[in-house]
Amino acid sequence: MTILLLLCMALAPAPAPKPEDDIRALLTAQADAWNRGDLDGFLAPYWNSEELSFFSNDTVTRGFAATEARYRKRYGNSRETMGHLAFENLEVTVLSPDAAVVYGRFRLQMKDSNPTGIFTLILRKQVGKWKILHDHTSTAN
Amino acid sequence: MTILLLLCMALAPAPAPKPEDDIRALLTAQADAWNRGDLDGFLAPYWNSEELSFFSNDTVTRGFAATEARYRKRYGNSRETMGHLAFENLEVTVLSPDAAVVYGRFRLQMKDSNPTGIFTLILRKQVGKWKILHDHTSTAN
Repeated sequence: MTILLLLCMALAPAPAPKPEDDIRALLTAQADAWNRGDLDGFLAPYWNSEELSFFSNDTVTRGFAATEARYRKRYGNSRETMGHLAFENLEVTVLSPDAAVVYGRFRLQMKDSNPTGIFTLILRKQVGKWKILHDHTSTAN
Repeated sequence: MTILLLLCMALAPAPAPKPEDDIRALLTAQADAWNRGDLDGFLAPYWNSEELSFFSNDTVTRGFAATEARYRKRYGNSRETMGHLAFENLEVTVLSPDAAVVYGRFRLQMKDSNPTGIFTLILRKQVGKWKILHDHTSTAN
């Protein structure tokens, strides 16, 4: 009986992951990529489009290429220059089957500074994958 | 014939306003309220809930009461103290029939300063009315 039960459990289809779980996994993967010095991995969930928008304090950056260039210039592409990233206080709100918003805080430990700030992300599910279409990040002024 | 046509046009139901038009009208009404020194009118489209979230640079404010108190303390409740507000570069994206996001810039002309910054708003339609559930505003640092 126990073996039959285990067999049934093994054969039952796994429950579909919830959008919130998918999005939290995306953010965890982003931080993991950052922390192994993998800037491309960190940027992978951003929408690879000219319409990607990135708001940082008073600066608007448009398009994936410009966003990538901005990150590369500021943080390089190695563990040494990128430091250690952690996300905190993450709140995921699913707005529709293909749209969600995330609120959170980042903490970065760099060699000479420990920047922190808060962010709002807009995500949409595109061709089965959640992508960040808009990132608004801001720090103390 | 012309009279019949006019009669038909007058009796035909007006086309339902698009979500984007509703949201743009909400923002215009907000700026108009600000510019007549009506802080309550400006705040009216914010969700009157403890769950309202307001991100400003590195500061998280939760709840309508705290958000209102923050505005009242900073800007008062008169044309003299509130100055003149204008929104620019507004982009409205409707994510679902009851969810939308707005990107834009504000410019404020005060007696002694002209603050500007960019914002991301999350709106949801609640009981037939669009409400701002989340405001992320940031300025240069």
